[in-house]
Order: sequence, then C-alpha cells, then structure tokens
Amino acid sequence: MTENKGIMLVVSGPAGSGKGTVNAMLLKRDDFAFSVSATTRAARPGEVDGVNYHFITRESFLERIDSGDMLEYTEYCGNFYGTPLKEAEEVLRSGKNLILEIEVEGAMNVKRKYPDAVLVLLLPPSYSVQEARLRGRGTETEEKILLRLARAKEEVALADCYDYVVYNYDDKADEAAAHILSIVDAEKCSIKRNDRVADKYLNS
Amino acid sequence: MTENKGIMLVVSGPAGSGKGTVNAMLLKRDDFAFSVSATTRAARPGEVDGVNYHFITRESFLERIDSGDMLEYTEYCGNFYGTPLKEAEEVLRSGKNLILEIEVEGAMNVKRKYPDAVLVLLLPPSYSVQEARLRGRGTETEEKILLRLARAKEEVALADCYDYVVYNYDDKADEAAAHILSIVDAEKCSIKRNDRVADKYLNS
Repeated sequence: MTENKGIMLVVSGPAGSGKGTVNAMLLKRDDFAFSVSATTRAARPGEVDGVNYHFITRESFLERIDSGDMLEYTEYCGNFYGTPLKEAEEVLRSGKNLILEIEVEGAMNVKRKYPDAVLVLLLPPSYSVQEARLRGRGTETEEKILLRLARAKEEVALADCYDYVVYNYDDKADEAAAHILSIVDAEKCSIKRNDRVADKYLNS
Repeated sequence: MTENKGIMLVVSGPAGSGKGTVNAMLLKRDDFAFSVSATTRAARPGEVDGVNYHFITRESFLERIDSGDMLEYTEYCGNFYGTPLKEAEEVLRSGKNLILEIEVEGAMNVKRKYPDAVLVLLLPPSYSVQEARLRGRGTETEEKILLRLARAKEEVALADCYDYVVYNYDDKADEAAAHILSIVDAEKCSIKRNDRVADKYLNS
C-alpha cells in the first residue's frame, strides 16, 4: 500500500444507529470524503453531473458492473445506484479517507472487491434503545417500524463479518466519531499497511 | 474476552526510539499501568517488595517458568527478571491497559503465551536520526554505539512480527503516544475483542 493513502471506511448500521449523524461529523474534517455515486436515473433540476451523481446510461452502468468497476451497487425503483471503484481510488490516492455508508450486503461486496477496506458496524447501545428511537421519530407507520427492526436483526447477525463494532450512545455521536477516528489512525499504523518497514528504515 | 478488560500492550523499540519517554506519557493516564516485575536479585536499600519488584528466590522463579507463570523473562548478571502472568492479568482485570516495555525476543514470547497482546514497534523516524540521537547523548563509547546500532538492525528486521509500527519524530513523543492511544481504542472496538455482539444486542 502506498504511504499516505487514505483508508476506505465502510460504515454500516441499522436504522436508528445514527450513522448519518456520525458520518456527517467525520465529513466535516479535511481528511475525510464521500465518493460521488453513479446512477442511471435522470438528473433532477439543479443536480450537477459529477457533483451530485455521475449520471450514466443503463448500458454504461451494466458494462461497469461487468468490468468490475462497481465496488457495490443496488437497484431501486428501476434505477441503478453504485460506487465506481475508480472514483473511490482517486479519493484514496489524494490521501483522504473515504466513507461509504452502505448496507451489510454491500459492505461484504466491498470487502471482497477491496480487501483493504475497513468495515465498521455502528450500533445503537441496545435493541430496546433502537426501538425507542424509531418510535420516537413519530414519522413512520407501525408496520414500517417493525420491518426496520426485523431488518436490523438480520444486519446485526452479521456483526462477525465486520472488523470493528462501535456503539453510538444517546447524545454521544461525537464519541462514536472519535472511536472511528481511532480506528482509522490505528489502521494506518498497522503492519499490514506499512510494508517493507525494515528496508525503508535501514536505508534512511 | 471480558468487557472492560484492559489491553496488554507490548512496546518495543531500538535504543534511541524514545520508548521510555512515550511510555512515561501513557503511564501518566489513569487507564494505563505497568506491572511489577519479579526478580531473583536481592533488594537494594529502600526497595520495597511488591512495589519495585517482587523479590523471589531462584527456586521459586524457576518453578514459575516451568508452570508457565512467566509471560517473559531474561537472565542478566546471574539474576532472573521477568513478568509474572498473574500480576499482568490482575492489572488487565482491573480495566487498566498494561504496558510491557520489552525487547523483540521477549515480545514474541508474550504473543505466544498471550495471543491477545498487542505488539507495537516504536521507531525513530530513520536510521540516520537514530544514529544521531545515540551519538548526541555523548555518554557512550563508540564501541557501545555501534553495538546498539547493530542490535537495532536485528530488531527492526523483525518488524513484521509486530501488529503496529509507530514512528517517533523528534520532539513529537506526544504524537507517538496519541497513536498508541488510538491503537488501544481501536483494538477495544475490534470484533475479535467483542464476542457475541449480535446475541448481546438482541437481548438488550
């Protein structure tokens, strides 16, 4: 791995884990970035190609899946959305850490395609807190809440596929973000990301 | 691993790496501790058993080696010095992180006996800086300096056996200490130190 290359950081978490808040805190820093996703849906008024999304044709999207250029992708309402590998690698080469906020299945795909990725599972402190958070929003039907909770159970069952677990306690998203910063810092010190330590040292 | 258990942290580094300074910074914190070593040498005036060392007989020391109770040990000038496993485990159970400042060979022995140990290699920014630091002390003979540098080469050659490498830049021991704090924080979030995440979550 090149020195000073950023870390690809996958942050997953069930509904109510607060991953949006935590990731927004990290993205305020100069050394973290999102990558611009690709999509086959049409640009909405005001959306700029290369800023909001890379707007590409369905044919082009499928080609990029075939050629292995999509780190992960999903189909939603007839449109594809995905993370182009080249885009992600550009961010990493610039030295910034890349945050991918994706679901468990996507996370596993990223790890397969890019084994250097670091997978973090963000969890509410407990299932009962999560349930309270979802109900507290007051914006969703009971049916939808139950679906989200069932989905969360499936996601958490795959915890062992992640590298790290970070608990996001109430009103302490800053502490969760600090743990993720520690994880990135530690990963940069890990021997597996520092090759030829002895060679470089002795020739310096 | 028990929740809230401390991390056993082995910090090795060649002469001139500044490990004494960095470890002293960590030990100022409430959540870090040294363990008291055992030795077969006689107590010097003012030394207190159980504080400076556990003063034990040669027979007792050899028994503890045989029974696997010495995490690592060395013989120097006819006396044994070592880290009793029970002593180390008491510190960890109290929730404090334990720092063991030991040489490469000892570090490898600790990892074999206690696979949960985290091995950090602290390095001067370069070999030439290290050489300058050793000569700058002005307290050692040229012969001794050359011996230390040769020994450093042997130690650094084993970098790949460590989990992490941290560079200690001039006048920035606080940054090196901060990296080690990140490593401890990240290790506590690692999935391998958080067993049954899903079970605990779903039953909470």
